[in-house]
Amino acid sequence: MGGDVGPSVTVAALLASLRKNPVASALLFGDRPRLVAELRGCKDLLVLNRIEVRHCDLAVLDEDKPSSVLRHKQTSSMSLAIKAVADGEAMACVSSGNTGALMALGMAHLKTLPGIARPAICGTFPTARGRSYVLDLGANLDCSPKQLAQFALLGSLTVTALEGIDEPTVRLLNVGAEQNKGGRALGLTERLLANEPLLNYQGFVEGDGIFNGDADVVVCDGFSGNVALKASEGVARLIKVMAKELFATSWLTRFAAMLLRGPFSRLQFKLDPSSYNGAYLLGLNGVVVKSHGGATEAGFTQALDVTIEAAKHKLPSLLLPILKQKLVSDKKKVPYE
Amino acid sequence: MGGDVGPSVTVAALLASLRKNPVASALLFGDRPRLVAELRGCKDLLVLNRIEVRHCDLAVLDEDKPSSVLRHKQTSSMSLAIKAVADGEAMACVSSGNTGALMALGMAHLKTLPGIARPAICGTFPTARGRSYVLDLGANLDCSPKQLAQFALLGSLTVTALEGIDEPTVRLLNVGAEQNKGGRALGLTERLLANEPLLNYQGFVEGDGIFNGDADVVVCDGFSGNVALKASEGVARLIKVMAKELFATSWLTRFAAMLLRGPFSRLQFKLDPSSYNGAYLLGLNGVVVKSHGGATEAGFTQALDVTIEAAKHKLPSLLLPILKQKLVSDKKKVPYE
Repeated sequence: MGGDVGPSVTVAALLASLRKNPVASALLFGDRPRLVAELRGCKDLLVLNRIEVRHCDLAVLDEDKPSSVLRHKQTSSMSLAIKAVADGEAMACVSSGNTGALMALGMAHLKTLPGIARPAICGTFPTARGRSYVLDLGANLDCSPKQLAQFALLGSLTVTALEGIDEPTVRLLNVGAEQNKGGRALGLTERLLANEPLLNYQGFVEGDGIFNGDADVVVCDGFSGNVALKASEGVARLIKVMAKELFATSWLTRFAAMLLRGPFSRLQFKLDPSSYNGAYLLGLNGVVVKSHGGATEAGFTQALDVTIEAAKHKLPSLLLPILKQKLVSDKKKVPYE
Repeated sequence: MGGDVGPSVTVAALLASLRKNPVASALLFGDRPRLVAELRGCKDLLVLNRIEVRHCDLAVLDEDKPSSVLRHKQTSSMSLAIKAVADGEAMACVSSGNTGALMALGMAHLKTLPGIARPAICGTFPTARGRSYVLDLGANLDCSPKQLAQFALLGSLTVTALEGIDEPTVRLLNVGAEQNKGGRALGLTERLLANEPLLNYQGFVEGDGIFNGDADVVVCDGFSGNVALKASEGVARLIKVMAKELFATSWLTRFAAMLLRGPFSRLQFKLDPSSYNGAYLLGLNGVVVKSHGGATEAGFTQALDVTIEAAKHKLPSLLLPILKQKLVSDKKKVPYE
C-alpha cells in the first residue's frame, strides 16, 4: 500500500479517518515493519484497536502490467485487500496504487454486476450547483455504445443511492450539444440511452457542462474523461499561480490578498482535487475506491470518507437487484437492431 | 457573416482592428444593407476607405451540413470569402460561422498543403510560461496515427514561423506520461513522431500539461482537444462564479476584492477565452481563421489580430517548400512497416 508517496500519508489519513468514524475499522495490507513504524506515533488505543495489520511481502508497482499482476502478484497487498472484500471480511477497499491492476484484480476477485461488461472509474467534480458524477475517468479508453449505456446506468443508480436524487439527469459528453454532432458511435449511444426506461437522459453536453452542473451524471469514454479531469486540474493550478503573481505586485494588493485569505482558502478547498479525491470503480460486485497516486494526507482522508460512505450505503448490493431485474426484462424485449 | 450574434459585433471589431493596423484592408461579405447600416456609425474615412462590402444573399447556417453547403451554398458569404483567398484577392479569411462548413469550403477552394490529408483546428492556450499550441480542437473527431503526425508537423512548423522558436517541443496528449500508456493507435503515433527528423518530439503529456507549458505543441484528436478546451473554459468560469460569491460574504472581503480589481481584471484578461480567440485551420493552402461563434467584440478583434498576424507571416507559403521537400525525401525512404 502507499501510492507514490508511501504509507506515511495513507496511515496518517487512516488514523484521522478512524477518529472521525468511530464505528469503522480497518484491515491494513502491506509491509508489517513499515506499517507498525507508522502506527507507533498514535497513542489512541480506541483507534489502534480498530486496525489489523496483515503482512505482505509483495507490492504491485506502478509499472506492472495488469496481466502480469494477475499471473504473478496474487499475494500482493492490493490483491489480498480486494480478496478481503470478496470473502466478506471487509466491506470496501481503497488503494492509491496502479489503476489497471486494481481494475484487473477487482474483476478477478469480485466479478462485475449482472449485465456489466467492465467497471468504470467514477469521480465527482465541483459545479456551480453542487457536484456532478463523471464516468469513465480512464479505465476504458475506447468504449462501445453498449458499455457507455452500462456506465450511464451505473452512474445514475449510484447518484440515487448516495445522494438520494430520484431520476438523476444523465448526459453524454460530446463536442457539441446539437443532435447530429459527434461520430456514429455517439449517435448509437444516444439511442440506447434515450430508450432506457431506467434513465432520465437529457442529451449531449460539452466539456464545460461538467462544471456548469448541466447534469448529475456525465458519461464519456475513459480517454476524454481523463483529459477533462486533468485539463481542469491544470487550469485551476494555472489560475492559482497567476493570481499569486498578480497579487504580489504592490504592498496594497498584497494587503488586500491577505484580507481575502479566508475566501481564498475556502475557494482552494472547494476546487482542490484533494477535496474530490476517491473515485469508485463502479460495476464491480463490491466497493473498490481508487485514490490519486500522489494524494496528500487530506486527499487520502477524503478517499477514505468516500469509501466508508459507499460501504455504509451498501452500494453494489443496492444496485444488484435492479440490474438483475433489468437483465430479465431485456431478454423478454424484442431487440430493435 | 456574423456568427451567433450577427454582424454588429464583427463589424465593430473590424473597425477597431483596422484602426490598429493601418496597412490592413478588408473585404466584407454578407448582406449589404445590414453591413452598411453597421458601418454608418464610423466617421473615420481612413478606415472606411479600406473596407469593401460585397453583397451575398446566401448565408451558411449553424445547422447546415458541410456536404449540403458544398452542393447548395457555393455563393454564400463564407464560400465567397474563402474563394477570395484562393483567387489571391485576399491574404486571409476569418469567420465565426459553422466550423464544418468552413473546413469543407476551405478544402474545396484552397486545397490542402502537400502530404496533408485534412486540416486541423489549432488554437493557443495560456500556460505558466507563455502559450501552447494545441491541435486538433474539433475538426477531426477520430484521427489516424498518420493524421496526428501531420498535425504535429503543421503545429511545429507554425510555432517556428509565428513565434520564432527553433525546434519547438512537441508532445502527444494521453492519459499518462509513461511509455506504454494509451491504446495501440497512440503507440503507433508515438513511433511516427519519434522517427520524424523535422520534429522535436518529447513524449506523452496529460491534460494538465497543456497549461503547465510542458510543450510548445500538443497534438491530439479533435474530440479530446475539444473536451480539453471546453472543460478548461468551464473550470475558469466556475472559479470566477465561486470567487465572486465568496468575496461578497462581508464588507471587509468586498473592500479587499475592490482593492484587487486591477489584478483580477488582468487575470481575467489572461484567462478569458476571448484573449485566445481565433484558431487556425492549419493544413489548408491559405490562411483561414475560425472565431468562436459567440465571440464578443474584444474576442473577434483578437481573432482578426490572429488572422492579420498569420497573413503577415505568409503562413502557408512558408510551410509549402518544407512539406514538398519532405514528400520527396519520404518517397526515397524504405517504409519500415
